[in-house]
Formats: sequence, C-alpha cells, structure tokens
Amino acid sequence: MPWYTARVTDFRSDNTHGASPEILDALARAASGNVTSYGSDPITERLRERCRDLFECDLEIFPVVTGTAANALAIASMTPPWGAVFCHEDAHIQRDELGAPEFFTNGAKLIPLAGHLGKLTASDVASAVDALAREGRAGVPSCLSLTQATEAGTLYSLDELRALGEVARSRKLGVHMDGARFANAVASLGCAPADLTWRAGVDVLSFGATKNGALAAELLVIFRRDLAAQIAPRWHRGGHRLSKMRFLSAQLEAYLTDDLWLRNARQANARAQEIARIEGLELLRPVEANVVFVRLTAAQIEALGGAGIELYDWPIFGEGAYRIVAGFGTGEDDVKALARAIA
Amino acid sequence: MPWYTARVTDFRSDNTHGASPEILDALARAASGNVTSYGSDPITERLRERCRDLFECDLEIFPVVTGTAANALAIASMTPPWGAVFCHEDAHIQRDELGAPEFFTNGAKLIPLAGHLGKLTASDVASAVDALAREGRAGVPSCLSLTQATEAGTLYSLDELRALGEVARSRKLGVHMDGARFANAVASLGCAPADLTWRAGVDVLSFGATKNGALAAELLVIFRRDLAAQIAPRWHRGGHRLSKMRFLSAQLEAYLTDDLWLRNARQANARAQEIARIEGLELLRPVEANVVFVRLTAAQIEALGGAGIELYDWPIFGEGAYRIVAGFGTGEDDVKALARAIA
Amino acid sequence: MPWYTARVTDFRSDNTHGASPEILDALARAASGNVTSYGSDPITERLRERCRDLFECDLEIFPVVTGTAANALAIASMTPPWGAVFCHEDAHIQRDELGAPEFFTNGAKLIPLAGHLGKLTASDVASAVDALAREGRAGVPSCLSLTQATEAGTLYSLDELRALGEVARSRKLGVHMDGARFANAVASLGCAPADLTWRAGVDVLSFGATKNGALAAELLVIFRRDLAAQIAPRWHRGGHRLSKMRFLSAQLEAYLTDDLWLRNARQANARAQEIARIEGLELLRPVEANVVFVRLTAAQIEALGGAGIELYDWPIFGEGAYRIVAGFGTGEDDVKALARAIA
Amino acid sequence: MPWYTARVTDFRSDNTHGASPEILDALARAASGNVTSYGSDPITERLRERCRDLFECDLEIFPVVTGTAANALAIASMTPPWGAVFCHEDAHIQRDELGAPEFFTNGAKLIPLAGHLGKLTASDVASAVDALAREGRAGVPSCLSLTQATEAGTLYSLDELRALGEVARSRKLGVHMDGARFANAVASLGCAPADLTWRAGVDVLSFGATKNGALAAELLVIFRRDLAAQIAPRWHRGGHRLSKMRFLSAQLEAYLTDDLWLRNARQANARAQEIARIEGLELLRPVEANVVFVRLTAAQIEALGGAGIELYDWPIFGEGAYRIVAGFGTGEDDVKALARAIA
Repeated sequence: MPWYTARVTDFRSDNTHGASPEILDALARAASGNVTSYGSDPITERLRERCRDLFECDLEIFPVVTGTAANALAIASMTPPWGAVFCHEDAHIQRDELGAPEFFTNGAKLIPLAGHLGKLTASDVASAVDALAREGRAGVPSCLSLTQATEAGTLYSLDELRALGEVARSRKLGVHMDGARFANAVASLGCAPADLTWRAGVDVLSFGATKNGALAAELLVIFRRDLAAQIAPRWHRGGHRLSKMRFLSAQLEAYLTDDLWLRNARQANARAQEIARIEGLELLRPVEANVVFVRLTAAQIEALGGAGIELYDWPIFGEGAYRIVAGFGTGEDDVKALARAIA
Repeated sequence: MPWYTARVTDFRSDNTHGASPEILDALARAASGNVTSYGSDPITERLRERCRDLFECDLEIFPVVTGTAANALAIASMTPPWGAVFCHEDAHIQRDELGAPEFFTNGAKLIPLAGHLGKLTASDVASAVDALAREGRAGVPSCLSLTQATEAGTLYSLDELRALGEVARSRKLGVHMDGARFANAVASLGCAPADLTWRAGVDVLSFGATKNGALAAELLVIFRRDLAAQIAPRWHRGGHRLSKMRFLSAQLEAYLTDDLWLRNARQANARAQEIARIEGLELLRPVEANVVFVRLTAAQIEALGGAGIELYDWPIFGEGAYRIVAGFGTGEDDVKALARAIA
Repeated sequence: MPWYTARVTDFRSDNTHGASPEILDALARAASGNVTSYGSDPITERLRERCRDLFECDLEIFPVVTGTAANALAIASMTPPWGAVFCHEDAHIQRDELGAPEFFTNGAKLIPLAGHLGKLTASDVASAVDALAREGRAGVPSCLSLTQATEAGTLYSLDELRALGEVARSRKLGVHMDGARFANAVASLGCAPADLTWRAGVDVLSFGATKNGALAAELLVIFRRDLAAQIAPRWHRGGHRLSKMRFLSAQLEAYLTDDLWLRNARQANARAQEIARIEGLELLRPVEANVVFVRLTAAQIEALGGAGIELYDWPIFGEGAYRIVAGFGTGEDDVKALARAIA
Repeated sequence: MPWYTARVTDFRSDNTHGASPEILDALARAASGNVTSYGSDPITERLRERCRDLFECDLEIFPVVTGTAANALAIASMTPPWGAVFCHEDAHIQRDELGAPEFFTNGAKLIPLAGHLGKLTASDVASAVDALAREGRAGVPSCLSLTQATEAGTLYSLDELRALGEVARSRKLGVHMDGARFANAVASLGCAPADLTWRAGVDVLSFGATKNGALAAELLVIFRRDLAAQIAPRWHRGGHRLSKMRFLSAQLEAYLTDDLWLRNARQANARAQEIARIEGLELLRPVEANVVFVRLTAAQIEALGGAGIELYDWPIFGEGAYRIVAGFGTGEDDVKALARAIA
C-alpha cells in the first residue's frame, strides 16, 4: 500500500518528482558508522575531489539543501550591502525567493533587466551597469547573476556566456550562475562544465541536484577561491551547515557518479523534445532544456483537466500561457498521455 | 566493503552517528510518485496532525534541516531587531551558531546569564530582565530561550520550567525551547511533551531529530499560532523551505512513529547511565540525559587514546574536563570498551 | 573677509544654499540654559503641538537631520524585511540613497515603476501591486512611496493623490510621502497640508526643511499613530535621536513660524516660473514647483560656463538635459544673469 | 523673555547644556553663500586639514550628528556580521544605543567584559579574545572598543592604552575609541592626541563635540585609511551624510579653533574636581574627567531636591549611587549651590 496516491501525470515542476534510486542507495550506505560532523567527513572530501576533476580546476564547495540558499550565499559572497546585482527580470532570485539575496547581503539591490527568451545580452548588461555606475548613488555594481538553463527553458550559448563574462570582468563584477538546471544545460549543449562556468568568467555556481534526482541537495561551487571565506561564516550562521553533512554530500556524490546527473537530465530533455513535437501545441519559447512553454486553448485546458494531467499556468508569459516541465521521472507514457489529451 | 572506515568507538557527539533504519526506510518509501512541492504534500500534512496529537493541542509546524535554523527562526519570530534574548551563557545559540540569532533577528542582542548546572533560575532571569527593562536603552526584553536537555547534560524539572514560564509571561517575553535533545529529556523525565512545553509556557519548540536518529531534520513546533506568520517568510527567504519537503517530513514522521524518538533516546540515556557508573570516572555534572561530563587524568586520557576511543575535551568546564556523548547508536560494547580503557 | 568664496550664481541644488536668518536666530535663542535631552525638551513639545495645529489632527513627530533618514525610517515602519515598496523609478529612495530603505527595512525590495512626468498613476500602481501579490514569492506588497513635489519638478493633484491613496488602502499598503520639497508643493497648490497628506491616505510624511532654509532638519510626521512604535527604536539605534534635540526642533519650529516655510517656498517657486519664461529655453517638464528641466544647446552651455553659472546635467532625462534649481536663496538677479547668458 | 525656563542647577548630563557662542557664531558665518553639498565644501576641507595637523598624521574624517552613529559606523568598518566586539560592560555601545552596533554591523555580537573603575585590562581582554577564538563558533574576534574618558569618569593611562593596543594588534583586532569625552581626557592627561590614539594602536576615534559645546557634532577620525571605504557607503545609506555638510563641519572647525575643545573640557574638569572636594560627599570612583559618582544619603537627596538641583541616580553603581556631571556650561556658582545643599 503506497503512503499516498501519486498523481498519474504531473508536469507541474521538477520538484514534484521523487528521488533517484542511486541517491537513496547512497544515503543508506552512508548511514552506518561514525564520522566527523560538520563537513570533515570522508564523503565530503571525496565529493570535493570529484568536483575538482569534473570542473578541471581547483575549487571549493559548500553543500546546501536549497537553491535559494545556494543563490543567496553565492551573491552575498561578492556583493556588499550597498551593492547592486544585475539579473534577468524573471530570475528565480528576483521572482521566487522572497528577498533571500537581500537578506543574505544585508540589503543589496537587485536590478532586474528585461531580455529576450529569458536571456540577458552583453550589451544590455553593459549599458545597465554603466548607467548605474555613472549615477553612483543607487548602488555599487557588484554582481551579475545568470541562470543556465534559463527560467524560459532556453540556454545561453558559450559565446553569449563569454561575452557576458567579459562585460563583468571589465567592470569588476563577480559572476554567479544559478544552475538549478545546470545538468539540463550541459546535457543539451554537450560542453565541458568548465567551459560553461569558470572559463567563461563564472565565479560561483549554484549546481542544482534537487530538481534532477536528489532529495534535497545543491552544491555551491566556488571557482574564485578567495570567496570561500565570505561564504563559510554565512553558511554557518544561516543555518545551512549540516551537522551530518555526509548525508548531503552522499547525495551529491551519487549524483556525480556514473554520470547520473547527465543521464537524468538527458532523459528529461528528451521528454521535453517529444512534448515540443506534439501536434497542436503552440510553443511560446524554443525548447532547449527540459521546460516547455505553450499557449493552450480553452478546449485543450479542459481536455488536460479531464485526463488528470497537471501543469501550472504561467501568466507572466501572456494570456493562456502554461508551463510543462519534464522531470527526471517523466516517462514516455506521460508524454503520450499529454499528446492524447491535446489531440 | 564500507565506503569509509568507521571509528570503532566514538563518543564525540550525537552528530557523528548515522541514521536509524526506520528513517531511511521512510525516505525510500517517500521517494516514489509526484506530490505538490514546498510543503503541501500528504506526508507533511500527516506530520502536522501527528504533532497535534502528540502535543495535545492545535499548533503549526515548520520542518528545517538544522537546529541552528530552528533556533534562529524561533527567536526571530518573537524578537524585534532591538530586542534582547535571555539565555544561559553556555547555550548553543550563544556559543555555537556564529550569530545565527543575530542574523535572523536583524541585530538583536543575546544576554548570556550564568547558571548552576547549565540551568537558569527563575529568580536570576527575573532580575536580569527587570534590570534591562529599567535601563531601557540596551535592548527591549523580548525572549527567553531555554535548552532542554541542557548543554550540561542536565534537565529542568517541570517545576523549574513552570517558574521560568511564569517569569516570562509576567514580563511579556516569548519563550523558546531549544530541544535539540528534547527526546532525551522526555525519555528521562517521563512527562507528557505538552507538560514540558506549552503548558509550562513555551511558545516555540526546536524539536530535534538529527542528533537522535534522523539524517538532517528538526521541527519547529509553534504553540502560539500567531507566530507562524513571523516564521513563514523568514523560513522561505532564509533558504529553509525545501522544495521536496516530503523528504524532510518523512524523516520526522518516522521519528514520531512507534515511539522511535523515545526508543532511541532511552537507549542513549541508558548508555549514559552506564558510563556514569564506570568506576574511576570523576563526574563533573549530574547525568540526567545522554551526555556525561568528566575530569580525566593524564593516564586515563592516554589509555583512551590507546584504545581508539574518541571524545572531545571541554575546557569551558575546567582543566582536564571532557565530554562523553552517548548517541542513539552507542552500544553496550562501546561503553564496555570505555570502561576497560578507564580501568 | 568671507570664510569661503561663494559661487556667484548657483542653480545646482537646493542644498547648495545656506540657511534662513530666522532659523539661525532660533538656534542662538535655543542655546542658553539646560533642558532635558533626547527630545523631552520644551521646544520639541511646542513643535509637536504646532504640527498638530498645522495638519489639523493628532500625530507624532520624529525630527531627523537628513531626508534619507526620514524616508528610510518611514518606509521601515510599514514594510517587513520581505516587503515590497512601490515607487517611481526616479524616486530619491531608489536613485540616491545607496540602499537606505533596504538597510532600515533589513532587506525589503523596491519596485521601481515608470511614470509620465515623474508621477505614478493609480492604475499603474494597482496593476503592479496586484501582479506582485498574485506571484506571491517576490515580496509582499507593503508600502507605496510618493514624492511631492516630484523629482521631475511636477506635482500630484489632490485627485491624483486621493486615487493613489485609495489603491493603497484597498490593498492594505501603507503610504509614505517623500516631501523633501513639500513646502514647494503646498505653496504651489495652495491646499491645506492635511488635504495633501492624511486626508488623501498618507500615513507618514517626510517633511523637508533642509532644502528650504534649514541647516539640517527634516521632520517625520506620523499620521497613523501606531507606526510610532516602529519608528522610535529604529530612530534611536539608527543614530538619529539627537541628544540635544532642541537644536533640531528649534530649526523646525522657526521654519513653521510666521509661515517661513511657505514664504521661502513661494519665493523659490516664483524664481522657477521666471526661469521657465526665459526665451530660448527648451523646457522638458512642466514647471510646477522650484525645479526646471531644460535641454540646452552647446552654445547655451558654453555661454553659461562663461558667465560662471553652475547647474547639473541630467542625463536620465535625455541628451543635453539639464536641471535648474531655484532655491530659497535664489534672487531675481540670479535669474537675470541666467537669462542674459541664455540670450 | 526666555523661550523656556532653564533649570537653575543641572548636573544630569553634558547633554542638557546648550552650545558655545563660538560655535553658534561659526554657524552664522557658514550660512551665507552657496557651496557644493554632501561634503565637498571648503569648510569640510579645512576641517580635514586641521585634524591632520592636530593628530600629526594623514587621516580621513566623517562628520556625524550623534555619538551613536559615530560608534556604530566605526565598529562596522572593522567587524563583519559574524564578528565579536569586546567592550566594557558599562560601555555606551552596550548599554545605551539600543543595538546600534548590531544594526550597523548586520548582526555582530558584543562581548561585554567586567573591569575595575570602568576600564578593561590588557590581560582580561587577551583572555577573553583567546577564549572566544579557541571556541571558534560564537563569533570571530574583530574589534576592541575602548571608552576614553570612561563611563565611570576615569581615564586610561598611556601605558594602559598601549598595552591594550598591543593585545589587539597581536590578535588582529581593530581598535575603536569612543571619545564622547575625548576632550576631557586630553585636557586631564595633557597628552598629545596622537599619543592617546593612533600611536597607541587606535584605528578609529569617535571624537565627541556635542557633550562639550557643539549643537550636534561628532567626528569620526579614521587613522587606518583603508577603513574609510567601509565607512563611506554606510554613512550615506545610514542617513548620516548631511547635504549641507558645511553646518556640521563648521561646528567642528570652531570646536578645534583656538583650543575651544580643550578650554571647555578644562573648565568642566575643574568643576568636577571642585565637586570631588565637597565635604560630606562619598566618592564612588576616582574623579579624573568631568563626571563624579557619589553615594548620597537620604538626607542629602532630600536637600538637593529642595534646592532644585538635578542629577541622575545610577543604580548600576549600587544602592544610593548618583552621577554628577560637570558640563562645559557648569559654573562655579552651580558647584557652590551643590556644596551648600550637601552641607
């Protein structure tokens, strides 16, 4: 007997899915025996090494349980209380975190910028930074926060990232990447993680795992090592330093073992492509990762409801807009059910 | 082959232990199917109901992953930025959280008070509150934070708690209980949880599970319902509202099922009593829960090291002071090994 | 011999002017004898009574030395750390205070809105508030901050204010008015101060005096008395509660005596009208208070420089835009010099 | 006719006194003509130069209107949010500022230490810092804040200051001096200001003028120039950067002209010595500056009341304790009235 009645077909969010068996197994394995607490355990040490291999550089890591914590800690490490953080107007840090960046920075200002397809352009960022710097009294330009994959289900190309990184570098801004769906981006672009991050100018990455198979695990990856000293105390006093850190690190280690992160992401991306090909669906954005934005007719909405298919409306993308998320647990049958309801 | 070499005999902390099999099983069960994220899932709903039964009252809950987060959120819900929080000078909130209460309250002041055996007395608290209120410009008395079981391994009696609650009530202070080892206290005192909390004047409880068998799970239990509105937004922007909340709630539900929390605590308490009876150990505090403070001779320290037995020195309790923690995973063999080394 | 060489003709800001002789005299009179410090002095008491008369209602006051402090304290009294504050994109709180509202609110979010002629419309505010409330996770709509006279030198009419106040009231937002140039607005509109403030829904007014003849004095006027308890402790711990409060209150009392505030404002407004009538000046905004925005030709700019006339360029109003401020000390000769240079 | 009835004999505080005529004159002189606002005026420039001469070194200055602002800005410049600030338990920053240091540092922790005669000893500070550093999780030792003259009316000797400075230097703590009564200390000790400050290891001085003749003026003097970048933005967003800065700088310039600061302080100190010599007064502390602590009998209290002499009781110095403050405006007649009432 199941503990609860699972929804048959759920496209609401990556977060409505459960967890990968490999990650549950890792937790079970990690549970025996005594180890030093607060992060000085062998699993966390191995995780750090694995990240250094994966990203091909020296780096520091801070495991946390939410993307909100990862983003806010990252931004606070490079933004003084009087700093300004440039981001897309639809960024999670602006729309969904109830002021977490403002809280962790002790009052910095987010500067939300419009941008086609959920992306910022290097020239728009340059203009906005220069204008703010010229005024001088609204806030000190300090950080550029990019989301990859974006909240619009699109991807920055390597060239776009490099151009943005150069704008930031030339103006002495730190660069944060919100990678809640970083795995989906890497799986789709086929790039080396290093190319998409530090080689393009990213200083700190919020490397997401929760949306892609973990129970609750995100990894702050610090490429600019000096920033670690700014994160460690905030991590502790923010209540984000787990005593039994091994259980967080074990999730992340399993996530990075045998390419589980990429396998899950590829599967979700593939489902999204199948959804994009459903006839009769009006796509609102290019489908480049695992999230699909569509405009539904009244008839379609009714049919989906009748079929027990759940998804969220997305009014900020216009009248009749909906979001369809393919999670790591979304199956081909789910997509077929969707296609049937639409047809 | 184990993933790491477990330490043979580890008395360093409750946090060096792994997790209870019942809790791991619950996670595995919770992992299938899709549910609404951010806390509107059936497991969290069941957990809330179970807590209402256990504490015999209406209440609200907020699951979090660390005691630091639980404590800081609780205190911030009843303390304005210019408020003063009275606590024992050895309290975790004062000594171990790197200013988490100050961060979440936006700058309140902790007033650490001395107190015999790790406990505050009603008369000392009354004096300190009245003195601060009389001065009027150091901080506004707002919150009393009590630790049960205390950091000295001792327990407040029901009468002591009620007297402290009355001091707080008469002076309009909120009362927070840091219950990182609340299970050990209930197991030892044999009281109803309600008697030890809201009936004695406690407004918010940090109900610990991590130290006693969970992977990472603490529960904020709000007895004064109006405080929930102060906690919810801080929980979110503090990065403590898990998207896959079910995995936090599942740990806590299993913890409260079939008295697992009490069984684990009773076992740890029993081990602590066995340790207290080891001949040749000089006890520094009465042993009332699962933590034992002793003074060791140089010969004993050497013997323990030779036997591979680990424990922390505790210099704030004096020259030669050490802390021996019996966790839920501490076995009779561990205690025997300790006894042998001492003898 | 003067202490410094005064600039002959200075239209840069109201803040480059000195102080009214009446206010200096009041300071000299206030300087003798001993009085209770921190605001319990007879001058402050008289000032409070005078404000109650002027605004025709019960109210509370907090004198401060800067508009930034007044604005930030006002906003913090009605905005929780997770709140959202709606303001014009050119508002002083957004552009010029380096995050003072974010600091005093402990991390609230400003929502800058575009608006014709420096003004917000009721319908735009309603839409923005409703959109944010619907999303629910960016910030909790808490405060509407209006500037009267605006940063564009324009004025809200009584009807416009009432409509905005109604939008705020119906959505449970507090209303703050940044009245750095409130005197210029009252002088120009000829309304009762009560009509322009609490009768239109304003809860807290930053009543400016510094720009209009005081040395350094602004008055927080609290129409919603319950907010005073939120301001008093922030005023103290923000370092804004003067020990010798009488010297702040004396400036404000003199300001409100014999209509000095209106006389100074009327004079400045009259000069602005004279400037607006100078032939050959391209006006960028209607001139309704004491600030004039113009587009200057290269020849005009050169002529002004040659004549030793100073003013600030104002690039946010477009290419070639300049701001001409008529202060309380601006004389008819100053305007004539300006006219000569332009001609 | 006076604006208010001055109290005949007022020993309550330095803050109940008015202002020196020289300072009022300077304000009147500063009031004419236009100058650049926000601190780029010639008076502020001259003040900076004068301070460099007085303190015999390069330095930066920030004028503010309260000691609370000066102290909090100074401490925030050298203390991260997770830092710990060591101070005497009777320090103004701990007892009287309603958490201003906690506000400006965004949540640092004050560590109040006991100390004979209102003074900290080098060895006590060293022990406290070392203990906190050893624990590692309560707060990071960051700042030592000393008060000169102390809240007990006593003075640190040069040797005591140097020893404290050396403790701070060796442990990498910044040193702040709360000099609300710095003038009284210099006047009494006859030392060079440089000897009492930077040569002894002080990094930032809150140089008080308000208690000693100004209307509202304190000067942050920054000896460690790199700290200025930490203060400037907090000064602005804290609402402490006056637009008409000249009126703050003019007070301070007059204060430092023709030794007004020392003349006023010497006079107050002399009055305090006269008070200390009144027969029948039981002194509770050595009288080394301008504040006298005494224990009064019931008969004496009654006599003082009958004579219209006002002073504050000081319960933290024990039963029957009172504080008698000789301000810059206290005359010989005032002391005689006091002596008569006591006799």
